[in-house]
Amino acid sequence: MASDKKWVYFFGKGIAEGKNQTKAILGGKGLGLAQMTSIGLPVPAGFTIITEACDYYYKNGKRWPGPLEAAVKKSMARLEKVTRKRFGDPKRPLFVSVRSGAALSMPGMMETILNLGLNDQVVEALGKLAGNRRFALDAYRRLIMMYGSTAMGVERHLFDHAFDEVKNRQTRTRLQKGPDASIADTDVNETELEVVVAEFKRIYQKHTGDPFPQDAYHQLKGAISAVFNSWMAKKAVDYRNAEKITGLKGTAVNIQEMVFGNMGDDCGTGVCFTRDPNTGENLYYGDMLFNAQGEDVVAGVRTPLKLDELNRIMPDVYDQLEAVRVILEVEYGEMQDLEFTIEQKDLFMLQCRTGKRSPAAAFEIAVDQASKPLITPARAKELIKKKLVSKATALKATKPLISREKAVSRIQAVDIERLFYPEIDWAATRDARNAPSLEAAKEAVWRESGLATGINAVPGAACGKVALTAEKAEVMAKAGEKVILVRKETSPEDVGGMHAAVGILTATGGKTSHAAVVARGWGKCCIVGCETLKINEAGKQFSVNGKTVREGDFVTLDGSADKRNVYQGSLRLIDRKPPAAYHTLMKWCDDIRRLKVRTNADTPADSVKAVEMGAEGIGLCRTEHMFFATEQRQLAMQEMIVADMEEARRHALDKLLPFQRDDFIGIFKAMNGKPVTIRLIDPPLHEFVPHTEDKMKELAQHAGLDLDHVRQRVHQLAEANPMLGHRGCRLCITYPEILEMQVRAIIEAAIECQKAGVKVFPEIMIPLTIDAKELGILVERTKAVADAILGEKRASLSYMVGTMIETPRAALTADRIAETAEFFSFGTNDLTQTTMALSRDDAGRFLPEYCDKDRTAIFAHDPFQSLDVEGVGQLVRMGIEKGRSTRPKLKVGICGEHGGEAQSVRFCHSVGMDYVSCSPYRVPIARLAAAQAVIESADTGKKTKSKAARKATRPAATKAKAKKKTAKRKK
Amino acid sequence: MASDKKWVYFFGKGIAEGKNQTKAILGGKGLGLAQMTSIGLPVPAGFTIITEACDYYYKNGKRWPGPLEAAVKKSMARLEKVTRKRFGDPKRPLFVSVRSGAALSMPGMMETILNLGLNDQVVEALGKLAGNRRFALDAYRRLIMMYGSTAMGVERHLFDHAFDEVKNRQTRTRLQKGPDASIADTDVNETELEVVVAEFKRIYQKHTGDPFPQDAYHQLKGAISAVFNSWMAKKAVDYRNAEKITGLKGTAVNIQEMVFGNMGDDCGTGVCFTRDPNTGENLYYGDMLFNAQGEDVVAGVRTPLKLDELNRIMPDVYDQLEAVRVILEVEYGEMQDLEFTIEQKDLFMLQCRTGKRSPAAAFEIAVDQASKPLITPARAKELIKKKLVSKATALKATKPLISREKAVSRIQAVDIERLFYPEIDWAATRDARNAPSLEAAKEAVWRESGLATGINAVPGAACGKVALTAEKAEVMAKAGEKVILVRKETSPEDVGGMHAAVGILTATGGKTSHAAVVARGWGKCCIVGCETLKINEAGKQFSVNGKTVREGDFVTLDGSADKRNVYQGSLRLIDRKPPAAYHTLMKWCDDIRRLKVRTNADTPADSVKAVEMGAEGIGLCRTEHMFFATEQRQLAMQEMIVADMEEARRHALDKLLPFQRDDFIGIFKAMNGKPVTIRLIDPPLHEFVPHTEDKMKELAQHAGLDLDHVRQRVHQLAEANPMLGHRGCRLCITYPEILEMQVRAIIEAAIECQKAGVKVFPEIMIPLTIDAKELGILVERTKAVADAILGEKRASLSYMVGTMIETPRAALTADRIAETAEFFSFGTNDLTQTTMALSRDDAGRFLPEYCDKDRTAIFAHDPFQSLDVEGVGQLVRMGIEKGRSTRPKLKVGICGEHGGEAQSVRFCHSVGMDYVSCSPYRVPIARLAAAQAVIESADTGKKTKSKAARKATRPAATKAKAKKKTAKRKK
Repeated sequence: MASDKKWVYFFGKGIAEGKNQTKAILGGKGLGLAQMTSIGLPVPAGFTIITEACDYYYKNGKRWPGPLEAAVKKSMARLEKVTRKRFGDPKRPLFVSVRSGAALSMPGMMETILNLGLNDQVVEALGKLAGNRRFALDAYRRLIMMYGSTAMGVERHLFDHAFDEVKNRQTRTRLQKGPDASIADTDVNETELEVVVAEFKRIYQKHTGDPFPQDAYHQLKGAISAVFNSWMAKKAVDYRNAEKITGLKGTAVNIQEMVFGNMGDDCGTGVCFTRDPNTGENLYYGDMLFNAQGEDVVAGVRTPLKLDELNRIMPDVYDQLEAVRVILEVEYGEMQDLEFTIEQKDLFMLQCRTGKRSPAAAFEIAVDQASKPLITPARAKELIKKKLVSKATALKATKPLISREKAVSRIQAVDIERLFYPEIDWAATRDARNAPSLEAAKEAVWRESGLATGINAVPGAACGKVALTAEKAEVMAKAGEKVILVRKETSPEDVGGMHAAVGILTATGGKTSHAAVVARGWGKCCIVGCETLKINEAGKQFSVNGKTVREGDFVTLDGSADKRNVYQGSLRLIDRKPPAAYHTLMKWCDDIRRLKVRTNADTPADSVKAVEMGAEGIGLCRTEHMFFATEQRQLAMQEMIVADMEEARRHALDKLLPFQRDDFIGIFKAMNGKPVTIRLIDPPLHEFVPHTEDKMKELAQHAGLDLDHVRQRVHQLAEANPMLGHRGCRLCITYPEILEMQVRAIIEAAIECQKAGVKVFPEIMIPLTIDAKELGILVERTKAVADAILGEKRASLSYMVGTMIETPRAALTADRIAETAEFFSFGTNDLTQTTMALSRDDAGRFLPEYCDKDRTAIFAHDPFQSLDVEGVGQLVRMGIEKGRSTRPKLKVGICGEHGGEAQSVRFCHSVGMDYVSCSPYRVPIARLAAAQAVIESADTGKKTKSKAARKATRPAATKAKAKKKTAKRKK
Repeated sequence: MASDKKWVYFFGKGIAEGKNQTKAILGGKGLGLAQMTSIGLPVPAGFTIITEACDYYYKNGKRWPGPLEAAVKKSMARLEKVTRKRFGDPKRPLFVSVRSGAALSMPGMMETILNLGLNDQVVEALGKLAGNRRFALDAYRRLIMMYGSTAMGVERHLFDHAFDEVKNRQTRTRLQKGPDASIADTDVNETELEVVVAEFKRIYQKHTGDPFPQDAYHQLKGAISAVFNSWMAKKAVDYRNAEKITGLKGTAVNIQEMVFGNMGDDCGTGVCFTRDPNTGENLYYGDMLFNAQGEDVVAGVRTPLKLDELNRIMPDVYDQLEAVRVILEVEYGEMQDLEFTIEQKDLFMLQCRTGKRSPAAAFEIAVDQASKPLITPARAKELIKKKLVSKATALKATKPLISREKAVSRIQAVDIERLFYPEIDWAATRDARNAPSLEAAKEAVWRESGLATGINAVPGAACGKVALTAEKAEVMAKAGEKVILVRKETSPEDVGGMHAAVGILTATGGKTSHAAVVARGWGKCCIVGCETLKINEAGKQFSVNGKTVREGDFVTLDGSADKRNVYQGSLRLIDRKPPAAYHTLMKWCDDIRRLKVRTNADTPADSVKAVEMGAEGIGLCRTEHMFFATEQRQLAMQEMIVADMEEARRHALDKLLPFQRDDFIGIFKAMNGKPVTIRLIDPPLHEFVPHTEDKMKELAQHAGLDLDHVRQRVHQLAEANPMLGHRGCRLCITYPEILEMQVRAIIEAAIECQKAGVKVFPEIMIPLTIDAKELGILVERTKAVADAILGEKRASLSYMVGTMIETPRAALTADRIAETAEFFSFGTNDLTQTTMALSRDDAGRFLPEYCDKDRTAIFAHDPFQSLDVEGVGQLVRMGIEKGRSTRPKLKVGICGEHGGEAQSVRFCHSVGMDYVSCSPYRVPIARLAAAQAVIESADTGKKTKSKAARKATRPAATKAKAKKKTAKRKK
């Protein structure tokens, strides 16, 4: 039980009890301190109270675990022994800091108390030791304030106010400064600080009822509890929610001997990175201040110096610090973020952790570490000579530090995204506003011009003038304006306007709504489900949260933020370009992965873009988008739909045939040599017909029909649940002539391309299959049409006919469906909708509550973004196993939105798919995730095979079953 | 191969080669002849060509199987030997008939050719033998006509016309009849028939190019091919499509010695039933004619005589026929439909088959056969004495002929339906119009006043005046009118008007649309999906197929017909009442079945009705219907929905609480002692809000809200796919206060009822669950509310909390869901919709093509009517197995529409459900099907256990798994 547990891990003098523990136990800071200690770096001694103590604290009415106090006392004794100082003893006083540190970094969200061990007596001793009484008084003043406010809950502003009083009255008078001149803390002198200390002690007593504790242990216990308490402080809880941090036990507490960087000019403090976190360049990058404490560097009170300055003033210390860089990069194989303090020319390391970096730097560092040495042999020799690093470490530093697999593992999907999408230039805003931090700058801009929060369907940012209709957007774009299209929701009719816009904002829909899916294909910033938006199309304006925006006004969309997505006015954007290292790393991914990566592309232009992004084929070419490309096509399509008789339908289809054939020719050419999966018409016909009286009139005239007839037909086509309605292959069951036209267009295009020397591999895909017999009928029709054309033209062509698996029934009966389907493509968007009875267009109303960590938290991820492995995944797995039980070599892919989401791609790998397909901009993410999946499964011992051995991917059981079935058939 | 096959089965002289074959091989007629022969009845000898020959014929370009001709010749030789006559020989001529006969009866749809063996020579011989040359000529005339038209394709009317010429010129002149007097065939004399024969031969030769074949074998081969050909004749194909007959190989062909009932006054023919087919009474029921052929009785040319007449004139023959009745009922244990011919006082049996009967007779006969003897011991003695039946047969006839199980197996769901629903009185129509048959009467009425065909969602018939709005329907009903409510579709708002109407007609929707489900609950005739209907509400009329009907005009709905469902004007209806035998038989069902049968009922009145129909509890009480019962409730509900804040919602809910509590009290009282499953609110809120400007205004006033706010809220609630939207338990996740109110109403009602001595077993059911965690949250809330009330009131109550399984994900994760759910109820309506991606409101557009046998024929049944075992069934099975793996005693039922469909109920039995639940009027069907399921599984050897052993129902594997899991948990 609690009494057996080791609650405290000591570090110091080369001993580091916690070096083999984890961040989950010691927190990030605690583990870093232990590890730095263990590899011989100069770390002030101390000990870490494990995170579980914090957990215990909250589970037991804010009481410490029983044995903790004794353990702390014992560790303090050990610390006194190691430091040869005594806590609270004026003779050789030991001072400690008490710092928080959870498993994941939560910068600035929890408390730190410094200078513990000071009291009325010790403060004087410290003054003498440091030869600087002002310094000692300042330290005491800080302790009283920090302890008072964080441990005892005295309001911070009371202390600030008192300090300001002294500054304003006494210091100003003494320095003879006018009422508007600024007075720094450092202007306050020793005498005045005496007054401040006395006043702080008075405030403390007034508000706590007790005098400021003179007993050092009393202070220490209060400080430790204060750190525990800060774990559940509002700002910390909010931060964890915002960052989606869950599953932590609490914060660890680090008690460490104080070192002072502010004791004089031979002291200093700094923060640095082992590489440039912006560019990734292999150089030491950091800021420091002489005679200062760490918080002074971070707070930016004084302008910090570059590290070169240290090299100039204290070259030995600099060399030592340089050695630390080498030692740490060799140890961790990762760029580190360090904090150091120099106390009277002695270097102390206070923190090391993996450093944050820009997306470009992420690639640069990973590739550099995996392909180049950290230092030159000459520099290595030098460091060895100075005895700053061991020979072994130096040797390692002259070779690549990590493997390519490690480099690949380290990159995150978001790093890739941020390489390709523009972002709001917050740094410029911060600088322009002189804001203390990016966060502060964002906060200020939001207060001034924030409009609304929606769902960030496509990342990036966009800034332009509002258009409220697709037509208007096109007109404005033609006039050279940047346009943001704002709609309640979008439909295929809006595609022209969407294409003309630089960004899209809708009031409804989720991450896989029409707007989102289309915009994603173009890598265009898109905010959907902005429910507070009230659009008044007639009035040419929209209102949101009490503000009104007129058509033509500027708005800025931020698709890279979880919240705060829509701003009034125009914010500056920055465009990024992928660095060379990106291409190197992606090449490594391609070497490692087994899954092929295809793209969803509907036009020749998309196809070219996708190949550029690394696509190895098209996994989903939606033929219906082609019908909206021009008014002429649209009218022909509509004419077909409103026709009553097959003959009239065929007549209209004949008009569409050449358009569609030309599109396919363009796509085949762009994908020369790569497979192209073409899905036959999928959406319900109602999506294609005009919905305004004017447009219906136009159509009636065009088609030579009665307006009443058109109106009625349009009305008839409306469905209660179009998602589950007359769509997908059902259209081809009722109107076989549509299938015939589409197949004809595909086959004729393929023949023409072949003649021109283009290699074509068309895969004709039938959507929304629910039954083997249904599919059988359509496959037969498809082949009949295709083979008739091939016969006619005396051409030969290898093409495949397969199906989407996007309904539960298709997955459940996949064994029978695979009798006729030559390939499966999992349409996980629709499969998620049907499996979960969840309309992606409507789920915005309640799904956030299902995914919000802070509330009911039913799902860990939005199932439309990351595949629901527990539910939908079962059907996918079942579909593949059943399908391959009938047709062992069945080609299987995925073409839902999930095909470009890292976690889902890993799942696709694990169930033995052949490829994933996603929008062009997600292709690199899929390539990365596919490589990571191989690396991970190798790591977990489930060694996944090389490309050559890929046929062995399926579980043995399935293979055996498949064999059996095949054997049976042969009989 | 074909040469080894036995293509022909002989019967005659007590030998019946085919007696142990099946109808599939010999056809119904062929098997009947073989079996009658084998039990010693007087059957003219002959042989049957098996159905496979017909199959071969069509698969091989209309060629006979190679060995068939030889087999026919051999059989004819055998027949000649047995009959001591020779085919085509004038000396002792043998005549044969060639008749069709498939495995299922297709009355009048295929061909028969009689009198084969006649030619110019033999006809004279026959005349002499019969002492009646006219008879012989008439037979020859018939042969030429039948052979010419059926075997050689000479148009029938050419023969008719020639015959009419003779009748009109010669006979009329001879008989001196005026031009308007009718002349019967029998008026034509010998000389005139000579002319007719000559003329027929001339026509034959003119149109075939050959003279009428004088070779008997030539005739025979032609006749056999003619029967094969008639299998694919248009009328036969149409009939099979209409009757949904599939899977037959073709028709068998029966070649049999001719016997002549028209040779003179000592001859005759008749058709009879071994019981009264209208009432089921145990008496000989039939018609006969002396000196006539079978077709004369059927065609109704002369008024037939009752069998008593035969008893009077030929008592010996009658006794013989009476013995046949006893022998056949003992043999078959079923009421038989017989054809007999008397040739010169010799009785011959030509056909026996199970007789068609009225629904009341079906029950009467089944119960009588299973509980009473066919004849008295006295009559038995008499028959033995006359040596007409064996002792063994007589003994059997004095005891019940069949078991109760057999009686139960024999009843069909449609028999029950027809007992309870009114029908159009077609017999009266036939009589009033002097139509030759029911079919002809129907045809004539349809031509005159047929309006449209829709989907017959609820059987029965209804006749009333058209109302186009629910309000109007209520007003008209209050004024005492019978009303037919005609709507595009119905919504919960229309429920009042639907209740007031006697029948409902909608333009859209399928068998499980809102209109259908609600109407079914009330057993009210309902036609949906009548897509041709164009309603003009403002103009107070609708038009359909070119006809216009005004509000207030009469229409008649026929829900018992597959087509022709809507008539203009008023047709006479007949009401049926279940006979005593119905109650007896249902009692037997209850003794046999393992499945419990509950009902779907939402009101006290429905509950009372359901108990009357035999319901053993409520399986689905939909709470939302209660919100529409009065305007007051409706407004309170709407107020709740449009409220912005939780507080306002709670305020509105407080108003609903007493209503809902009172409803539950009424239901609990009606179901005293029986379990009541109450489903929490399910439909999307949009269904509840007003959709007209006027009603929105009213609501705004009532709720003290801005009209704009109400409008916006209504607009906001509209969903793209409401079926997959914000509904079911999602409402209780976002608005927990709704759940709280409903649970409170249930628990308070239960407590109050208990106090009044009523036994209550509430089962609270949470709809549309997709996740275990989601359900966990709601179950916890439910129990918290319930237990708080029980604590407050110091009451104790045993209640359960469970869930619907109506999404694929719920079935897939049922093991985890069963951790909190105490029962499962499969909502197979929604489960079908999601599994098949099929909206029941929209599927009307294409589903008929999926189920239409004549076309693509993808599904054998409409999956909304009969559970899709292959797809949805997999999920149901998986859900049960997984659920019980966690909670072995999990109670499982079904409450979709399938719970009242016989085939689906059998499936529910087979997967080990505990109960089915269906609308009150379907309760008896479910009781029957549940009993039949037990009987069937016992028959197939999978002996299903008695009620006592019901826990052992699940497959052993599941049980083992469940045990293992339980064991694990105990650790």
